[in-house]
Amino acid sequence: MKVGFIGLGRMGTGMAADLLKAGHAVTVYNRTPAKAQGLIDRGARLAHELADACRGDVVITMLANDEAVEAIVFEEKGLLQSLGRGAIHASMSTISIALSEKLTGAHTSAGQRFLAAPVFGRPDAAAAGKLYIVAGGAPDAFKACLPLFEAMGQKVLHVSDEPRAANLIKLSGNFLTASILEALGEAMALIGKAGIDRRRYFEILTSTLFTGPVFTNYGMLIAERKFEPAGFAAPLGEKDIRLTLAAAETLRAPMPLASLVHDRFLRLLAHDGEQLDWSAIGQLAAKDAGLDV
Amino acid sequence: MKVGFIGLGRMGTGMAADLLKAGHAVTVYNRTPAKAQGLIDRGARLAHELADACRGDVVITMLANDEAVEAIVFEEKGLLQSLGRGAIHASMSTISIALSEKLTGAHTSAGQRFLAAPVFGRPDAAAAGKLYIVAGGAPDAFKACLPLFEAMGQKVLHVSDEPRAANLIKLSGNFLTASILEALGEAMALIGKAGIDRRRYFEILTSTLFTGPVFTNYGMLIAERKFEPAGFAAPLGEKDIRLTLAAAETLRAPMPLASLVHDRFLRLLAHDGEQLDWSAIGQLAAKDAGLDV
Amino acid sequence: MKVGFIGLGRMGTGMAADLLKAGHAVTVYNRTPAKAQGLIDRGARLAHELADACRGDVVITMLANDEAVEAIVFEEKGLLQSLGRGAIHASMSTISIALSEKLTGAHTSAGQRFLAAPVFGRPDAAAAGKLYIVAGGAPDAFKACLPLFEAMGQKVLHVSDEPRAANLIKLSGNFLTASILEALGEAMALIGKAGIDRRRYFEILTSTLFTGPVFTNYGMLIAERKFEPAGFAAPLGEKDIRLTLAAAETLRAPMPLASLVHDRFLRLLAHDGEQLDWSAIGQLAAKDAGLDV
Amino acid sequence: MKVGFIGLGRMGTGMAADLLKAGHAVTVYNRTPAKAQGLIDRGARLAHELADACRGDVVITMLANDEAVEAIVFEEKGLLQSLGRGAIHASMSTISIALSEKLTGAHTSAGQRFLAAPVFGRPDAAAAGKLYIVAGGAPDAFKACLPLFEAMGQKVLHVSDEPRAANLIKLSGNFLTASILEALGEAMALIGKAGIDRRRYFEILTSTLFTGPVFTNYGMLIAERKFEPAGFAAPLGEKDIRLTLAAAETLRAPMPLASLVHDRFLRLLAHDGEQLDWSAIGQLAAKDAGLDV
Repeated sequence: MKVGFIGLGRMGTGMAADLLKAGHAVTVYNRTPAKAQGLIDRGARLAHELADACRGDVVITMLANDEAVEAIVFEEKGLLQSLGRGAIHASMSTISIALSEKLTGAHTSAGQRFLAAPVFGRPDAAAAGKLYIVAGGAPDAFKACLPLFEAMGQKVLHVSDEPRAANLIKLSGNFLTASILEALGEAMALIGKAGIDRRRYFEILTSTLFTGPVFTNYGMLIAERKFEPAGFAAPLGEKDIRLTLAAAETLRAPMPLASLVHDRFLRLLAHDGEQLDWSAIGQLAAKDAGLDV
Repeated sequence: MKVGFIGLGRMGTGMAADLLKAGHAVTVYNRTPAKAQGLIDRGARLAHELADACRGDVVITMLANDEAVEAIVFEEKGLLQSLGRGAIHASMSTISIALSEKLTGAHTSAGQRFLAAPVFGRPDAAAAGKLYIVAGGAPDAFKACLPLFEAMGQKVLHVSDEPRAANLIKLSGNFLTASILEALGEAMALIGKAGIDRRRYFEILTSTLFTGPVFTNYGMLIAERKFEPAGFAAPLGEKDIRLTLAAAETLRAPMPLASLVHDRFLRLLAHDGEQLDWSAIGQLAAKDAGLDV
Repeated sequence: MKVGFIGLGRMGTGMAADLLKAGHAVTVYNRTPAKAQGLIDRGARLAHELADACRGDVVITMLANDEAVEAIVFEEKGLLQSLGRGAIHASMSTISIALSEKLTGAHTSAGQRFLAAPVFGRPDAAAAGKLYIVAGGAPDAFKACLPLFEAMGQKVLHVSDEPRAANLIKLSGNFLTASILEALGEAMALIGKAGIDRRRYFEILTSTLFTGPVFTNYGMLIAERKFEPAGFAAPLGEKDIRLTLAAAETLRAPMPLASLVHDRFLRLLAHDGEQLDWSAIGQLAAKDAGLDV
Repeated sequence: MKVGFIGLGRMGTGMAADLLKAGHAVTVYNRTPAKAQGLIDRGARLAHELADACRGDVVITMLANDEAVEAIVFEEKGLLQSLGRGAIHASMSTISIALSEKLTGAHTSAGQRFLAAPVFGRPDAAAAGKLYIVAGGAPDAFKACLPLFEAMGQKVLHVSDEPRAANLIKLSGNFLTASILEALGEAMALIGKAGIDRRRYFEILTSTLFTGPVFTNYGMLIAERKFEPAGFAAPLGEKDIRLTLAAAETLRAPMPLASLVHDRFLRLLAHDGEQLDWSAIGQLAAKDAGLDV
């Protein structure tokens, strides 16, 4: 398929490479074009203007936050003006429910189609085509994008006809993961203060009930206190919990654990934690317990 | 081996049966003897007095709380008076760090040996010999009990020479699980309020990142709101988080998420939740969100 | 002085009456003109268009939320277009820091002056000219408005040359009050569950250490569970804590107690609490304790 | 009256001096007798053994914690053995509900009378006879002690015929105060991060709605960050919130704000905060916000 790809961060670069590997014709666009070089070497076309990335059947955005997506879509010669009738915008980064609704309305009014297809997985999973993709939107648009999603994901789920449902599920998933970071952090502070080795504890946990990637990946990072380089940086984690709470506010659903986790992220950012992996909230409990971290 | 088994609740009954199946000579004791009938039918001997269960190499206790263990051990003609020199008391239920330390001291003074060997797993895992057993205590005592533990568990870990380390690890594990109950509860309240089906959401979670028994077992219970009959009753969950917080108090390790979860259990018990499974704290967020539960 | 007054809710009506009583020439404007009748009877002029309220030296806004203020200021023929050079907009309701900054910039660019002068006090204090007024903005603008403020307040404080400082202080004050509502609610749940009479308890508190209007006013409402009619409605309380948290987010200042209180308000609103006084969050702890409320 | 006084810490010394000043015959007892010298100089008799302090109509205990009270009462030749029939033990320090019930039972069985009469106020109020005294117990015992209480307090309230009710009210009062410490700490972190001076902010608060001793005393300590010397030390604050939570556990009354505050105290103690005034929890929010404290 002929596809545009906008946003070449650590996640986007791997995903675009997956598409190339699967034989799709990919035109990439990034505010900092230098980041595109590796992909060009692998066969991607470089779009010098945004509109150049919008000439295919589908354009994928994988951008850091709401502001970036909003700018790319609504600006002069942005997606909304450049995409053809019936073309699809697949938004694959984690955005707010409110923006998802706004994009759904705007693209529909312009005779275009909008899919939300956020992903679970870290940069290594993106590069390996092993993401989990949770898509929301009209079935025909989903079906059209399926070959692309399958190139990037080990599992692709169509969860709703409403794009925003996929966004909410993604946000809730990041909330679940952040909750586990906090839980692991508190547990390791407790056992650490009792003189039990964190690495040994991690092995015990993950060889008994606490299996699965969230425990094995993040448990090790917290046990090792290895928060750099960041696979998913703290400000992105903060953003996702903030967006979760914004949805909770709109829906009137009190989430005290989400509030707790959000305050943890604010504290991390107030102490120059921008460069750290989001799992670094898992060492705050140890700090509070007076452990040397 | 010749082993006494004290405490024939839902967990203990399955564990004693595992021992019989493996060919051990098991003498059982229970305050309510009627509960022993099924085991007697399978070859167990019934102890009419506590001392009768203390004549072997090992006596195992699987009792509901600190008070029960303390009574059994320290009462007139209790374990402390009845066990022979060198005999082993293996405490397999979840007890406090403080009691574990007290038992370690008392048995040692009496020339006996003490192991803490708490388990992860619900009644079905106990009956199937599929528990995870986390043991703490002197290596020789652990080695002596290993054939028993292997009859009951799919994995047996010797985590420390100190019994209390095993107890703390067990408590921390239940804290982790309870944290996930709360996280799942909040996530399902959020997506439920947005009109997304909880069962479908559960399938999405457990088919992507959130694998492993904690998510699959409890996620379904919360999605289905099926809290009876209780596999692990709410008052036991409350007790374990209370004991976790008691350890945190002693160790001076603030655990805000444990505090949050503890307050959830108190609320459940304040509303006649004694009969419910502990995963019922996972519906409180939905109540707060105004969903009809 | 010649002054326009926009926003005739329960607070604004009393404040406009104070100005009339002090002899000022007041032109009132309200989206629902019928609410102005009582003030017209007392000598106010009715503005049929917004611009009519902008012809004096000062225009005061006392509107329910950011959206209302933003509309009034920026709309076609709104304040920004209608106010003369050097004229003052004094915003006296509780608005966000972000909007305060935006208004400061916009009015300055238009050659106008902007004061934030939020108030502490409930409708009865407004009607009696007994508010506490916390003003931020240029000293000359403050000095010009002082006769107006003194007509409405028992105490007027110029706290900063920056308008937003006054808004933040106001928000923080409402956070303090909401925290006390929660604290009183939990204390009364505790003593209530022990069988101690809440009214007697209230008398004990307020006759010992817990004096001052916050305790005496709200303690009684919670003890009596008298949440209607609302002096300050729950949605306004929720809004103020939300704006406090928005400021905390921007400033990167974690506020776990503000988060807790915010979740309380969400829960109240999820259960049709819009009509209740904001002190109704003080009965949620009693509900959680299983008391009949 | 002839009265024994046990416990000569900072509070007890002032209270015993009040009794001497009012003309009562006071026999003092302290584990460290040297602390009694100042009172002996003012006319007190020194008890060399505990029993010597138990020969009058009333014995007052003002001891640091449950363990100290329990030892003094139940030890060989302690209060229970030494007090005459009909004599009164008035316990004026802050103790647990559980101990209060135990003391009520034990003294009654011994034909003695028990009053709980905890106090509100710091050492300077104790020395000046300006405490608030909240008493629970049989009316006749209260009446008998009234002359003593009036010598020590500016206000004396008989709140219940049950001693434990007075203890619970006292605990709940310390919980309220600790909640305000946290609220002030968060508010000052917020405004501090916005560049507003804390002392000026304190003046604004206390000259408007936030009057009364809790705000004026503690607000200044937090604004000034003056936590030494301690008027009421952090470990005592921690203890009182712990006892509040123990009562909440027994009564099944979830108190999330008490849990939050308790975790704050644990953190303070985990960082060598034993010497600090309990209001030092009010600087933790500033630390979390990255302010230099």
